Amino acid sequence: MWELDRHSGKPLYEQIADHLEQRISYGEFPPGSLLPSERKLADQLGVNRSTVILAYAELRAMGIIESRSGSGTRVSTSKWGATPKHTPNWSRYAEGGSFLPNLPFMRKIREALNQHPSLIDFASGELAADLAPMEEIAELMSEHRYTSYLGYDNPQGYIPLRQALVSYLNTYRGIQTAESSILITSGSQQSLYLITQCLLSPGDAVAIEDPSYCYSLPMFQSAGLRLFRLPVDQHGICPDDIRSLYKKHRIKMVFTNPNFQNPTGTVLSAERRKQLFEVTSELGLPVVEDDPFGLTAFEDAPPMPLKSMDVNGSILYIGSFSKIAASGLRIGWMVAPRSIVERLADARQQMDFGLSVIPQQVAAQFIKSAYFLPHLERLRTQLHFKRDLLIESLQKELADLVTFTPPRGGLHLWCHLRPQVHDGKLLEESLKRGVVFVPGSVYGSDSGFVRFTYARAKTENIGEGISRFAEALRELTS
Amino acid sequence: MWELDRHSGKPLYEQIADHLEQRISYGEFPPGSLLPSERKLADQLGVNRSTVILAYAELRAMGIIESRSGSGTRVSTSKWGATPKHTPNWSRYAEGGSFLPNLPFMRKIREALNQHPSLIDFASGELAADLAPMEEIAELMSEHRYTSYLGYDNPQGYIPLRQALVSYLNTYRGIQTAESSILITSGSQQSLYLITQCLLSPGDAVAIEDPSYCYSLPMFQSAGLRLFRLPVDQHGICPDDIRSLYKKHRIKMVFTNPNFQNPTGTVLSAERRKQLFEVTSELGLPVVEDDPFGLTAFEDAPPMPLKSMDVNGSILYIGSFSKIAASGLRIGWMVAPRSIVERLADARQQMDFGLSVIPQQVAAQFIKSAYFLPHLERLRTQLHFKRDLLIESLQKELADLVTFTPPRGGLHLWCHLRPQVHDGKLLEESLKRGVVFVPGSVYGSDSGFVRFTYARAKTENIGEGISRFAEALRELTS
Repeated sequence: MWELDRHSGKPLYEQIADHLEQRISYGEFPPGSLLPSERKLADQLGVNRSTVILAYAELRAMGIIESRSGSGTRVSTSKWGATPKHTPNWSRYAEGGSFLPNLPFMRKIREALNQHPSLIDFASGELAADLAPMEEIAELMSEHRYTSYLGYDNPQGYIPLRQALVSYLNTYRGIQTAESSILITSGSQQSLYLITQCLLSPGDAVAIEDPSYCYSLPMFQSAGLRLFRLPVDQHGICPDDIRSLYKKHRIKMVFTNPNFQNPTGTVLSAERRKQLFEVTSELGLPVVEDDPFGLTAFEDAPPMPLKSMDVNGSILYIGSFSKIAASGLRIGWMVAPRSIVERLADARQQMDFGLSVIPQQVAAQFIKSAYFLPHLERLRTQLHFKRDLLIESLQKELADLVTFTPPRGGLHLWCHLRPQVHDGKLLEESLKRGVVFVPGSVYGSDSGFVRFTYARAKTENIGEGISRFAEALRELTS
Repeated sequence: MWELDRHSGKPLYEQIADHLEQRISYGEFPPGSLLPSERKLADQLGVNRSTVILAYAELRAMGIIESRSGSGTRVSTSKWGATPKHTPNWSRYAEGGSFLPNLPFMRKIREALNQHPSLIDFASGELAADLAPMEEIAELMSEHRYTSYLGYDNPQGYIPLRQALVSYLNTYRGIQTAESSILITSGSQQSLYLITQCLLSPGDAVAIEDPSYCYSLPMFQSAGLRLFRLPVDQHGICPDDIRSLYKKHRIKMVFTNPNFQNPTGTVLSAERRKQLFEVTSELGLPVVEDDPFGLTAFEDAPPMPLKSMDVNGSILYIGSFSKIAASGLRIGWMVAPRSIVERLADARQQMDFGLSVIPQQVAAQFIKSAYFLPHLERLRTQLHFKRDLLIESLQKELADLVTFTPPRGGLHLWCHLRPQVHDGKLLEESLKRGVVFVPGSVYGSDSGFVRFTYARAKTENIGEGISRFAEALRELTS
C-alpha cells in the first residue's frame, strides 16, 4: 500500500494527485471507471477530506478525471481529454518509403493462395509438405534439448551450426571453408538482401541472368541498382557478355545461379565455368553464386558449385535448406571473405538482431544426423517422379503448344508456349480453373513463358492441374 | 552408366567430350585428378581408341584437361585454366553500401564480450540465462509437436501465434485488436527497421526521445532520416516539444518508449500521455510506441501502453518477448492499421521471406500455457532483487560520485557520474578490469552518463562488477 511522505516538502494534496495520476496512467483505473469517494479515500490515507478534495480538483483541472453530482468521480471518458481530430494519413505512409512493393503478379498469386488453399500450386518455389523431412525433424527435436541457451545469438549465427556447415560444405559441395567465413542467414533471400543493401550503392550496375528469379525480387530496384542482362541459353550464360557489360557499364557484381538455374533449370557448362573464372578474375569482379538446387540433381551426380573451384576468392557463395529440406526452417548461409561476413553480420544485427537459436539447432542436428542422406535420396526420387509426371501431363495435354528442356534437377520446369497469349489473362483464366503458376515475365523474359514448379503440388494433382491449365490456354487461343 | 547414342547425328568423339566435360563440371573429377587412359575408356565405351583420342584433344583445346607424357591425362590443375589475376577489392565493397555500420562503441563492446565471455556484463540489454523460461519452454517442446508444417509462413506471421497474441494483448496490455492487424517480426529491432525503411523516405524528419536507445541504432541514419530530439525528464517527454518540432521541421513520425524508457527507466506521466494524444491528434502525426518493458514493472502494477487508449488509431505499437521471456526466440510483433501491416509484411517477404515457424509455435504455446504468469512473477521478483543489489553496490562504492533515480521496472539503471570523465577511457579502464557497460553517449546524451543493465549479469557478480567499475572511475579521476 502506498503511503504519504509527511516529511517531504511536497504538499499532501499534490502527493495524492501525483499518485492517482500515476495509477491512472498505469491503467489501473481505465477511462470511465469510478474513483473512491472523497470521504473513503481520506479515511484510507488518514488525511482530512479537504486534502482529497484539493487533490481531485487538481486532477480535474488537468482533464484526467470528471465529477458529476450524483454519479461520483470518474476517470475521463473522453480518453485523457484528447479530442480526436486527425487520424494519420496512413495510406500516404504505406505508399511512402524507398522500399518497393512486390510485383503485382507475385502479390496476386500470394493472395490467391492465401484465399484458396485448395488451388493446385505450380507457383510456390518450395517443396510439398510430404517432401520435407518432418518426421525426422520431429524425431530430432524429441531426442535433443533445444533450449540450453536463449539469449541473443552470435551475430554471424549459431556456432555449432556453422561448425556443422563446414563439414557439410566440404562433403557435399566440395567447398573448403572455416566457421569464421560463414554467415547464417534466414535463407537466400536475406543473403541477397544483405549483399544488395550493404555492399552496393544506389546507381551501381550489376549483371543478372536473363531470365532470372532475381527479376521477381524488387530488392534490386529498391537498392537503386542498375540491372544489365546476361542471356541464358541451354549451357547457361555466356561469360564474354560480362566483359562487354563491364566495358560499357562498369558493372560491380555478377549474380548467377549455375546449377539448375531458376527458372530455366539450366546447368552452366564446364567450358562456360572456365570462361567465367577467366573473365571475372581478369576484371577483379565479384560473383554472387546462389546454389540452392545443387543437391536436388536426380539424373546425374550433383553439379559442384563454382565456389569449389574458387582459387581467386572472388565468389560470394549462398546456400540454403529451403529447397532441400524445409523452407519453414528459414536457414540459409553465405560463405564469403571474412571482411564481408563481418560487415554483413554487423548490418544484419541492425535489421533483426539475428535468427532464433532453435531452428539453427534443429538444422545443425539434422545435417549431422543419419536422417540426412536417406532424406536426400528420397527427395531426389520424388522430384524425378514429379518432374516426369509433369512432363507426361504436358505432352498429353499440350504437346502441340509447348516446348521445354527437361530439367535434370531443381524444382522448376521452364516452358515456352507456342501461342501468343497475354500473361495476365492466362493467369486469370487459370486461377478461375483452380490452378496457379508464375508467368515468365516475372523472371524478366518476353511473354510466352511459364514457370511450373513440380515440387510443390501434390503428386495426385499434377495431371489435373495441367489439364486445367491446358483448358485455360485453349480458351485464350481458340 | 552413360551410353553413347549411335543414332544421333552428333559425332561419337563430341558426345564423349561433352559427357566428360559435364562430369568434370559436376565435380566428379576435381582439378588435378587422373582420367582413364585412352585405351581403358575406349574399352569401357566400346569405341575405337582414336575416337577417345579425338575427344581428349577437344577437351585439351578447351583447357579443361592436360596430358603429359608418362603421367597420363589429368583435369587441369590451373583450375579451369583461369589464371588468377585480380581478386575483387573486397575491402572497398565492405566499406560501400548505404547501410551504416554499428557505432564503434557498440562494436567494441560486442567484440569484447565475444572474446571474453567471462566479462561482467552490464551492457547487453537482455535477461540473464537463469531469468529466461528455459525449463518451461523445454517442457512445452516435449509436450507439443512443432513440425506439423514447415513451408513458407504466412507473410504476416504464423496465424495461431497471432491469435494467441490477440488474447495476450487484451489481457496484459489492454489492447483490443484482431489477428489481421498484427505482424509478427523477429523482435522490436525488425519492427523499427521495417518502419524506418518502408514508411519513411530519405530526408524525412522524425522526433526521437533524448536520450534514447534509438541513437544506438544507425538504422535511422541509414534510412536517411533527419532526427530531432524530445528531451526526457523524470516524467518522460514534453509533448509540447512535438508541436514546435512539427512547426519547424514538419516531422513525420514520433518514436517513444513510454514505459520504463530505455535508457532512463522513466514512465511517461498520465498528464503527458494526455498531452501527447492531444498534440499528435491535432497534427495527425503517427506515434511509434515501443513497449518491451511494460510487464517487468516490479514496484507497481504494469503501466498500460498508449495503444490501450488510442481512440484515434494513431499509434504503431511494437512489442516483443525479448525482454520478458527470451531474446533468443526472436519473436516480436507490431499492431498497426491493416494497410500498414500489409505493406510491411510485403516488404519483409522481400528481405527475409518471414520467420521460422518453430519459434513462433513455441511462443504461441508459451503465452497460452500455465507457465506464463508464474514465470512473469518470478521475473519481476528477480529483476527487483537485482536492481536493489545494483543500487546497494553503487551506494556502497560510489555514493559520492553517482546520482540516479531508481527505476520501477525494466532492465536498466541510468546513472549520472559527477566527475568529468571521457566515455571511451572509462570503458577502456573498465574492460581492463573485466567489466562492461554502455556509455551514455551511445544513447545521444552528453558525456557523464552510463547505462547499467542489471538484468543480464549474474546476481553474484553485480557487487564485484560495480567494485571494479568504481576502481576504473577512480583511476581516471584521481
